[in-house]
Amino acid sequence: MNILIVYAHPEPQSLNGALKDFAVKRLEDAGHRVEVSDLYAMNWKPQIDSADNLAYVNDGPFNPAVDSRRAYEQGTQSQDIAAEQEKLAWADAVIFQFPLWWFSMPAIMKGWVERVYAYGFAYGVGEHSDSHWGDRYGEGNMAGKRAMLVVTTGGWESHYSARGINGPVDDLLFPIQHGVLYYPGFDVLPPLVFYRTGKTDEARFRQLCDTYGQRLDTLFSTPPIPYRQQNGGDYEIPALTLKEAFAEGQRGFGVHLKE
Amino acid sequence: MNILIVYAHPEPQSLNGALKDFAVKRLEDAGHRVEVSDLYAMNWKPQIDSADNLAYVNDGPFNPAVDSRRAYEQGTQSQDIAAEQEKLAWADAVIFQFPLWWFSMPAIMKGWVERVYAYGFAYGVGEHSDSHWGDRYGEGNMAGKRAMLVVTTGGWESHYSARGINGPVDDLLFPIQHGVLYYPGFDVLPPLVFYRTGKTDEARFRQLCDTYGQRLDTLFSTPPIPYRQQNGGDYEIPALTLKEAFAEGQRGFGVHLKE
Repeated sequence: MNILIVYAHPEPQSLNGALKDFAVKRLEDAGHRVEVSDLYAMNWKPQIDSADNLAYVNDGPFNPAVDSRRAYEQGTQSQDIAAEQEKLAWADAVIFQFPLWWFSMPAIMKGWVERVYAYGFAYGVGEHSDSHWGDRYGEGNMAGKRAMLVVTTGGWESHYSARGINGPVDDLLFPIQHGVLYYPGFDVLPPLVFYRTGKTDEARFRQLCDTYGQRLDTLFSTPPIPYRQQNGGDYEIPALTLKEAFAEGQRGFGVHLKE
Repeated sequence: MNILIVYAHPEPQSLNGALKDFAVKRLEDAGHRVEVSDLYAMNWKPQIDSADNLAYVNDGPFNPAVDSRRAYEQGTQSQDIAAEQEKLAWADAVIFQFPLWWFSMPAIMKGWVERVYAYGFAYGVGEHSDSHWGDRYGEGNMAGKRAMLVVTTGGWESHYSARGINGPVDDLLFPIQHGVLYYPGFDVLPPLVFYRTGKTDEARFRQLCDTYGQRLDTLFSTPPIPYRQQNGGDYEIPALTLKEAFAEGQRGFGVHLKE
């Protein structure tokens, strides 16, 4: 299969760099084709701006969404954006590997999302009607592809547990897993989170690789997180609230999982 | 009082630009001193890297945390980072105003957090012992200062409601409000979120300004979100899980609010 690794760490000789190298080898040894978008090495431009449209015309206030659609439709997107979209189209699965910085992905990777996720490509897709509010949350151009987060953090697992002070890791990652990955149609696998990575000796590194390797070996068989499809009948449209019959009396991120 | 507005939008003539201009005038008219960090106008560098330490020595793998501490302690931080830290030290309140892009702050603002929040300045502060796990979550160098998010989104309020498909807005913002603002000690005010801002005519703009103005007029009197202090006795240390006596049987972001 074709696998894209979107990876963000400034130091190749870091734990993240070593884990990424391990993943590439493991996947290639299993017969997959692998592409890596090493955002720091590529000197990826994080901030969205009018330079992202090579044919940008300054004929009024710059609107990022409108201009993104225009560039995508006209084929005038900056080459770095178009290249990443081609990789996404090529990929059967995408792995996002990064250190958790301030409870989210590094800025350089957030900027990858903002710029590569063009209007018409990752949002603003499909028709809007009384029963269908765009192709999103389970539908969209990434439908049929798989995605998985691989995250390192210096914090302890208990700090990210159900009652841990940082908040449960699944909830912290919901804006990414549901909002960035499921939104354009990815099947999202449970995340792989490595804790206390500030102190990783050789033995511990081999343990991490074992765990990572198992997740890579089962990349196409692990059941995805069972999020509810937006247009599958579970939500009121256009309010996009979960119908009362489902997850009765409950609220929060958890209601968006099928029972 | 001294108020810093950290602001991210690429277009000065946008709704965000107009709201920011309104806020500056409102605050100055009330007698406050205002500084604006207009990240796009400043061409803010989003990605953390070794250039952030002007005295960086390549004597081994680059470790962002270690090098951040070294630069902060030695006074060799990049000038743009030091300048923002000075603004934070000067400010009595900080407003972060941004469009919600992919359920979080724009990459350029995330990069402001990553680079300005140096080790020793915003984390890695204070002593670690059996009863005190660093000065964080309610303690730290931002203690005594207030912070507030002002966020625009094209989505509807119902989409961000308790059972809305995007997730409740307070939960989406928890990684920022609790993880980025409360962590170094800010008192965090309830966020101001403007929905459906894709279609803002003049009458609606005046409504938004009225609402924004009221929040600015009460910036120093609005009760902050009652997050629990990490070292205040509510958490087990070092597990940093909420003690069983509090929010019994509950889990998730909500348990970190005082009852």
